[in-house]
Amino acid sequence: MSADWFRRRFLPRGPLPAQRPPRPRASPVPYRRPRFLRGSGSSSGTADASRRPDARPVRSPVRGRSLPWNAGYAEIINAEKSEFNEDQAACGKLCIRRCEFGVEEDQEWLTLCSEEFLTGHYWALFDGHGGPAAAILAANTLHSCLRRQLEAVVEGMVATQPPMHLSGRCVCPSDPQFVEEKGIRTEDLVIGALESAFQECDEVIGRELEASGQVGGCTALVAVSLKGKLYVANAGDSRAILVRRDEVRPLSSEFTPETERQRIQQLAFIYPELLAGEFTRLEFPRRLKGDDLGQKVLFRDHHMSGWSYKCVEKSDLKYPLIHGQGRQARLLGTLAVSRGLGDHQLRVLDTNIQLKPFLLSVPQVTVLDMDQLEPQEEDVVVMATDGLWDVLSNEQVARLVQSFLLGNREDPHRFSELAKMLIRSTQGTDDSPIQEGQVSYDDVSVFVIPLHHQGQGHSSH
Amino acid sequence: MSADWFRRRFLPRGPLPAQRPPRPRASPVPYRRPRFLRGSGSSSGTADASRRPDARPVRSPVRGRSLPWNAGYAEIINAEKSEFNEDQAACGKLCIRRCEFGVEEDQEWLTLCSEEFLTGHYWALFDGHGGPAAAILAANTLHSCLRRQLEAVVEGMVATQPPMHLSGRCVCPSDPQFVEEKGIRTEDLVIGALESAFQECDEVIGRELEASGQVGGCTALVAVSLKGKLYVANAGDSRAILVRRDEVRPLSSEFTPETERQRIQQLAFIYPELLAGEFTRLEFPRRLKGDDLGQKVLFRDHHMSGWSYKCVEKSDLKYPLIHGQGRQARLLGTLAVSRGLGDHQLRVLDTNIQLKPFLLSVPQVTVLDMDQLEPQEEDVVVMATDGLWDVLSNEQVARLVQSFLLGNREDPHRFSELAKMLIRSTQGTDDSPIQEGQVSYDDVSVFVIPLHHQGQGHSSH
Repeated sequence: MSADWFRRRFLPRGPLPAQRPPRPRASPVPYRRPRFLRGSGSSSGTADASRRPDARPVRSPVRGRSLPWNAGYAEIINAEKSEFNEDQAACGKLCIRRCEFGVEEDQEWLTLCSEEFLTGHYWALFDGHGGPAAAILAANTLHSCLRRQLEAVVEGMVATQPPMHLSGRCVCPSDPQFVEEKGIRTEDLVIGALESAFQECDEVIGRELEASGQVGGCTALVAVSLKGKLYVANAGDSRAILVRRDEVRPLSSEFTPETERQRIQQLAFIYPELLAGEFTRLEFPRRLKGDDLGQKVLFRDHHMSGWSYKCVEKSDLKYPLIHGQGRQARLLGTLAVSRGLGDHQLRVLDTNIQLKPFLLSVPQVTVLDMDQLEPQEEDVVVMATDGLWDVLSNEQVARLVQSFLLGNREDPHRFSELAKMLIRSTQGTDDSPIQEGQVSYDDVSVFVIPLHHQGQGHSSH
Repeated sequence: MSADWFRRRFLPRGPLPAQRPPRPRASPVPYRRPRFLRGSGSSSGTADASRRPDARPVRSPVRGRSLPWNAGYAEIINAEKSEFNEDQAACGKLCIRRCEFGVEEDQEWLTLCSEEFLTGHYWALFDGHGGPAAAILAANTLHSCLRRQLEAVVEGMVATQPPMHLSGRCVCPSDPQFVEEKGIRTEDLVIGALESAFQECDEVIGRELEASGQVGGCTALVAVSLKGKLYVANAGDSRAILVRRDEVRPLSSEFTPETERQRIQQLAFIYPELLAGEFTRLEFPRRLKGDDLGQKVLFRDHHMSGWSYKCVEKSDLKYPLIHGQGRQARLLGTLAVSRGLGDHQLRVLDTNIQLKPFLLSVPQVTVLDMDQLEPQEEDVVVMATDGLWDVLSNEQVARLVQSFLLGNREDPHRFSELAKMLIRSTQGTDDSPIQEGQVSYDDVSVFVIPLHHQGQGHSSH
């Protein structure tokens, strides 16, 4: 992606062309639930005729089907928000092949791919919006993108420290020292691969949706275990936390129009054309109206983390670029997340104003060193879509996890049972810790990944 | 500042005009040391003929002259780096007047300014580069800008919670609720005032330097006490830390081409014209050369926090936008800081490539709640320019502070003695905790601000 590309794509110089619906050239992405749920209930997963809470089953893998690291999983469809469950999930083994270099001749290398050079594991949650298609494509695609990106740099992951040149040749004797001084470690290559994989997957989704004439986007939260480390990559408002006996630690942070206000306002400052004169980039405590004209009201702009007062002009009465508070906050009145995959065609209703320029597909990645952590018996990572976190705090989830695991030491399916229990806790049942009126009507999907006895023997030839 | 302004100023469409030296219309800013050092030694402060360490005196206020909160101060000029000490300092009482509203008639208010409505205190350090002028102007000006910005919003600081409208009139009955939901507090107005004051001061410096035909820039680190809170605003690579009996807490973070890499690379991605084809925005472990062409080498771009490999093309051999490591890191080969005041005319040597578009004048502000802190006898804030932190870690400074204060409970000038001791510790004397070769040859300036028994009775009519 280049700046020119950005300009060509998002900043047409002439009048905006009328928005034309994409012409489908491929068949639509079929709706499905995650493969590892096969045999666990209604396979279509579409809405029941009556979508009362007790009619919406909590689904999890059938007993006997085990997920990587014996992780648990459960999900529930939303209460009449959409026809389909727009969440998707994926997990599996990640097999990275190595291209071994043979004889070098005139810059042409003979490459031999060994079968499995590095293996890791992968768990992913995707929370779709505007239809289920983008989340399904992401669940089908992202792990392949990640494998490809990791294979492209795996030679650099072999040494204790990544070499300056992927070939391992030392052009300059002090190259290792330059890499050392920059503090570049193997984990930086994995982070880079995750960043590239998210972007590649976003491009694939864009092409596929255009070809099939579908629309939509999704968030992506991914955990990857590789060489003794657990990487958590997040783009959107899902969340992962580490729960230990005496500790709750966030492993991701959310990207919403509120948390990314300054980045989004700054883009609108640089490219005011993106707002087409219809929105104001400034933030006010509420949408302004005629009575506010000429008054000094609280506001903030892209460069401010504090607040100040400005005299209200007519242009300040426009609809705000970011509007609403907390869960209600929307970008351009349309979208509740500011990072994710897809949404290539998304426009503000009845306008040509595009959302995509304001969205990032690049994730934030945090790294958990399993050797340093020395995981104990009850240590788990809980990954869930926003439906869970909207009604339960990190601490509430941690308490539920801790007390459940203490009372269920033997059941081999206890992590899926735990995931189911967490989802039931969002549905306002009697034993739920949530308060009246805080029931989740959203799709909810949860992975519980146990860390004990895992992440060892991570490298295999 | 608008995007159009940015484009007009930094992105000329035609060929770049030849750089013409500004025509001086005003007399140059005279060199001086801080006013509160009067009587403490050579008033010119220029270089001694022999600038050996023992010939460079550590200066601090004369005994009997007390600074706000009985703070201590000391400074030393650099060892032959420049003719003048390019650091500057300022401190004093901050008196905020209130414009009281009288009878309202046809939108015109009768305003009455009471003498002192709110009082606070102010300590500031400025570390100049490219000459002492910008730092002197900042020391002369920033507190006035801050007073003006605070006076502009002081009506909003009166209530428990800032009102939506500065006039206090409630246009919409739920306005207080909107402000509440946004979580806007009095301290956000102070943060906003600090952000605006830094920008206003930057504009003043730009005008003054252009008028006097001088050049240069400076960092700015400011501490402000107001209504029971201590605000620390930082733009540059100076640093403030809180030192308590059992705690060391950073109150600022540094803004350098390294710490702001992604912001700077992103600007170059958006406006490639800013590099005039002379620089590459990509980061590599070292500057690339012909031998690297066609090889896959480690790199990262603006959207990456991890690293990946790319095949080296000819354009990658250009000089990097950010080059060097740690203290040696430079923006466009020229500047070691990425935030600060001034530098309006600064260009890459022998080119028309401007530095200013990459620099921010807006500070990051942290807030210390004095009531929550309940400061004890030995609790202090240490503010210093980078000359101190280049050779002493936060922990080393904290240990020096703690042991000094334990042994000096009675001396009323002990905080200036402590500041002097900290500076002597950077000069490689026998009792210094720093290692051989880690002597500071830079200008060093230090404030030590005691917190015990301070910040009370903060509001006066």
